[in-house]
Order: sequence, then C-alpha cells, then structure tokens
Amino acid sequence: MTRRRPRLSLDAYERGVRERDRAVLAQAITLVESRDETDAALAQALLTRLLPATGGARRVGVTGVPGVGKSTFLDEFGMRLLSRGKRVAVLAIDPSSSISGGSILGDKTRMARLSLEKEAFIRPSPSGLTPGGIARRTRETMLLCEAAGFDVILVETVGVGQGETAVSDMVDFLLVLALPGAGDELQGIKKGVLELADAIGVNKCDGEGALRARTALHDLRAALRYLPRRRPSWKARALAVSGLTGEGLDALWDVVEEHRQTLEASGELAAMRAEQQRSWMWSLITERLERWFRAHPEVERRLAGIEADVVAGRMTPPVATDALFAAFTAATRLS
Amino acid sequence: MTRRRPRLSLDAYERGVRERDRAVLAQAITLVESRDETDAALAQALLTRLLPATGGARRVGVTGVPGVGKSTFLDEFGMRLLSRGKRVAVLAIDPSSSISGGSILGDKTRMARLSLEKEAFIRPSPSGLTPGGIARRTRETMLLCEAAGFDVILVETVGVGQGETAVSDMVDFLLVLALPGAGDELQGIKKGVLELADAIGVNKCDGEGALRARTALHDLRAALRYLPRRRPSWKARALAVSGLTGEGLDALWDVVEEHRQTLEASGELAAMRAEQQRSWMWSLITERLERWFRAHPEVERRLAGIEADVVAGRMTPPVATDALFAAFTAATRLS
Repeated sequence: MTRRRPRLSLDAYERGVRERDRAVLAQAITLVESRDETDAALAQALLTRLLPATGGARRVGVTGVPGVGKSTFLDEFGMRLLSRGKRVAVLAIDPSSSISGGSILGDKTRMARLSLEKEAFIRPSPSGLTPGGIARRTRETMLLCEAAGFDVILVETVGVGQGETAVSDMVDFLLVLALPGAGDELQGIKKGVLELADAIGVNKCDGEGALRARTALHDLRAALRYLPRRRPSWKARALAVSGLTGEGLDALWDVVEEHRQTLEASGELAAMRAEQQRSWMWSLITERLERWFRAHPEVERRLAGIEADVVAGRMTPPVATDALFAAFTAATRLS
Repeated sequence: MTRRRPRLSLDAYERGVRERDRAVLAQAITLVESRDETDAALAQALLTRLLPATGGARRVGVTGVPGVGKSTFLDEFGMRLLSRGKRVAVLAIDPSSSISGGSILGDKTRMARLSLEKEAFIRPSPSGLTPGGIARRTRETMLLCEAAGFDVILVETVGVGQGETAVSDMVDFLLVLALPGAGDELQGIKKGVLELADAIGVNKCDGEGALRARTALHDLRAALRYLPRRRPSWKARALAVSGLTGEGLDALWDVVEEHRQTLEASGELAAMRAEQQRSWMWSLITERLERWFRAHPEVERRLAGIEADVVAGRMTPPVATDALFAAFTAATRLS
C-alpha cells in the first residue's frame, strides 16, 4: 500500500465540500470510510457541520440481481439526468464485493460514459466491512454528496443479502430492476423486495425482449394490485425500461418526481426521513450492545454451547438468555 | 381480584401435563403467564423438563384482519380436525386486546362449538403484556400444549401490529385469511403479510361471495407467481374457503399435511425450527440489552433530547450513539 495521504483541516474539508471541489469531496469520503479513530472523530465533526446543507437531493435506490443490467441502466439514466441539468452521484453498495477500497476502475468500465462527466460522481463502497458498516459509510457518503450540491443520489446495490433493506432505509425511492423470464415468471425478484419497491422497472424491454417485457409488465401490474401500498399515499408502479435504448427512462424520472411531490404534500417524506434517522440510531445502538455482549469473555466462553443446546431443543431460549445474562452481569461487575 | 390459587409442585405440573390433565395444563399456562419471579423460575424448570415431549404438533398460524371471519373459520376448521381424530388447541394472540387474562368467555362465544369439545382447548393470550411478551407466552403455551399431546396448535392473531411476524416466527405454516373486496382488490392483506403466507385462504366464498371469491382467487394465483417462494421447496397456495359452509377446509388440511411432508423431506422443517429457536434467543437478548440501556439513569436523562436532535437532523446517528454510549459506560463504571 502507498502511504496515506495527509488529512486536511476540518475547515478545509467543509469549505471544499461546500464549494463542490470534487477532489476534496473524494478525500472527505475517504475520511468517512477510514477505520482510524482520529479520522472517525474528524469525520463526525465534519458531518455535523455539513448537516444543515444536506437533505436536498433526490435519494433513489436501484437494486436488482446480477445480470439484470444495472450498469447499463445507471449509465444511461445518469446521462439523461445530466442532460436535464442535474448533478448525479452514483454510490455502489456491494457487500459481497472484493473490489479494493480506493479503485473505481471497475465502475469506470461499468458506467463508461457517466464516469467521464464532470457533473457526475461515481463511488463504490469500501470492501471488507460488515454490511452494517457499508450501509453506514454509504449513508454518510450520501450526506457528503448532498452537501456538495448533487441533485440526485443513485444508491446502487446488488440483490444479495440484506442490501435492499439497507438501501430502502436510506433512500426516498427504491427502484427494483427485474427481467422478463423465459417462462411466465419475472426473474430477479428476491423475497421481500417487491414490497420495498416504489417502482419496478422491467429492464431490457428492447429488441427481442420487447414482447416478453410487455407480457411480464401486464402480469406484474395485476400482481401489484395484491400488494399493500408502499406508503399510505403511494402505490408501487411497474414500467418497461431499457438501459440500452433509454426507453422508459424519462417516464421513470417523472415517476420519481411525482413520488417526491406526493410524499412531500402528504407530509410522509419528512416523517419517513425522521423515522430513518431514528431507526438508524437504534440499529447502531443495538448493534453495539450486541457486539459488546458477545465480546464479553464469559459470554464468549459459554455462547457456543448454549446456542447449540437451544438449537437442538435441549434448552429453552428464555433459560439460555438468563444463563448468558448471568455470566455477562457477573463478568461486568468484576471488570 | 380473587386470591391466587396455590401453585403445584414441579413434579405435579409435569405429570399433569404429560397425562393430558386439562386442569393442570391450564394451571401450567397460568404459571407461564405469571410475572412473579418465583413462578417464572418454576415455569422455566417445567418447560425444560417437558422439552423432550414437544415439537410433535402441526403448528399452524392463522391471521387476518378483523372482519375476515377468523372465529367462524377456526370453529369449523377445528371441528373438522376433531372429526379426523386430532386433538386441537387454539391459542389467540391479540396485542391490541384488553380482555382479562383469565377469562375465556369471549372465546367461548367466538368458537361456540369447539369450546364445548373436550379434545379441544382454547386459550387467549394475557392482556397487558408487550407484543414481545405475548409472543413469548404464546410460544411457551404452545410447548405446554404439545407436551399435553395436542396434535394441532392453531395460533390465531389479528392482523394488527407485528402479530403476523411474531406468529410466523413460531409456527411451521402460516395461513393468511383474506376477503374478496368490493372492487378488484383483495381485502385484508397487510403490508408484508403476503410474503409470510404458506397459504392464503379467500374466506366467505359461500353464497353471494362465491363469484367474487373465484375472481379474486384467479387473480391472486397470478399474483403469487410474482412473489418469491416462501421456502426453497414450497410455493404459497391460494384456496377458496368458507368458515360458514366448510368448503375448502379439507383441501386446506391436505395442503398443511403436504407442506409438512415436503419440508420434512427436504430437511427444511428441522432447519427452520432450529433457526426459530436461535432467533428467539437473540431477540430476547437484544430486547433485554436495549431495555437495560434505556433504563440507565444517564441514558434516560439524555435520550429524549438526543433523539429529538437526530430526528430533526441536527445530529448524526453515529454522533448520537457515541454520546449515549459515553453516558452509559460512565454510569456503568460508577455503579
């Protein structure tokens, strides 16, 4: 590894981000991603200062399994947003990825046109973090990008693990990309994801896929009638889109804007964001409590055996919980 | 309140439950529901002794919003199971209920025929507990009923709050009851519930409802194609049922049995139950950690202010978490 670049001052970071200096923004994100404790304190101080400048962007999550065409979609969708005068940031969450923390070479190839534009900003998430850690860094990166004046933040996640739930908890609008399958089922829709979607894009509705996409769309719309509303004032939409030809992408943006206006008018946007903040805080707290609990030597010593007894039906979970807490409390008093 | 009935000995509880003594079973459930600490210790000792005798029943959750016809359905379905030689227990979870802990008068009226049968056992959940507390008592009551030789445990929940998720986490099979709506939407299906269902029963498919039920069923089956599989080897089914005429109830039981055989053969039943036990333990642990954290005087003193800052966007959740943990840790060291 090369030697670490020296950090800027808090003032320099703040000024640079607010003045939309891309180099400083990139360094601020690196600061947020750092696991160094001094960096972490500086990062939190920076975020606290920038908070009043955040919250203005359209926060749009884009998810779909590998092969659904996310890269081509994001490249074309991003280019169209640029042509509407929007500044666009693409943040990628990929808990399964092993890409290096600093390199965006992969993303430059994936989004060939967008990555060359100076009003666009593409940033992958760092590897080697827990999914919770990646989500936290992505949220904070999103805030930095907002403070740097980006109008649209596209948060991309591959459809594995808990990615969609994490993204759904940080964005205003979640787009699920799917493919018309060979048979009569829609491909690439994971368990639970359909109910998180604000819109479903049936991608690759071009060329030979056109007919299948239209059939899938028709059935999908019928299916959506049976799903409860995503929000009291919003029912999920289904659209045919093509990352290749751009079909449906303008209509999709109109849906994002309509969603924004609807939720703003109903007061749900403010309520949703407040709730996202609150639940983020509580997930950090319970995560930390659980980590602390698991790390206690007495708990660690007994956990595997007790968990095995519980799983095998030899011990009830309440008895197991009591036993682990007894060990934990005794150890805590001694320390 | 009348004076509390004296408790039995551990041996007497165990023998009574194993010998299927209904009066002792009822007292054992009261013991499990008690908030007295001595009772709780006795209850856990009893459950630990009975554990080897549990796990044999068909655990079936039944959910649906008020008005969907759960009582009539359970009464008729229970009677049919009795006529097949099954012993049936009905446990009701109702987090919103204010019924008194001991009275089952309401349930005697609700399930008029079943409540008179001696091979059936109906028990409401105690009021005044947290949803988590009710779920815990219901799980433990289910174990007691299994040890008392009941073949089928029907766990009923009204479609409010987190009831379905709690039930889904303790049963093998979740039946969601719904109604054909006046328009083209199915009524009474809550957000997220469809994806938890192993089967959806379109109820009141009798008389004037017959035609609407059939249309709803047709559309629902199309919709189910778009939902991911409930389990790798099981795809949710949709059936027309009538609690009033009994139509579809034999077919429904066949589905429950087919589900059991399928999941047993694939090994998913054992894996699912093991996972239910593990996740029950962890939910008890994190619940207790969070309660402990919230109850700490320093945390309690600062929480409301910090949470308000987070929700209003004046403080980032990581900074808030650090501040609360600093208060918590300092207070813990002092105590």
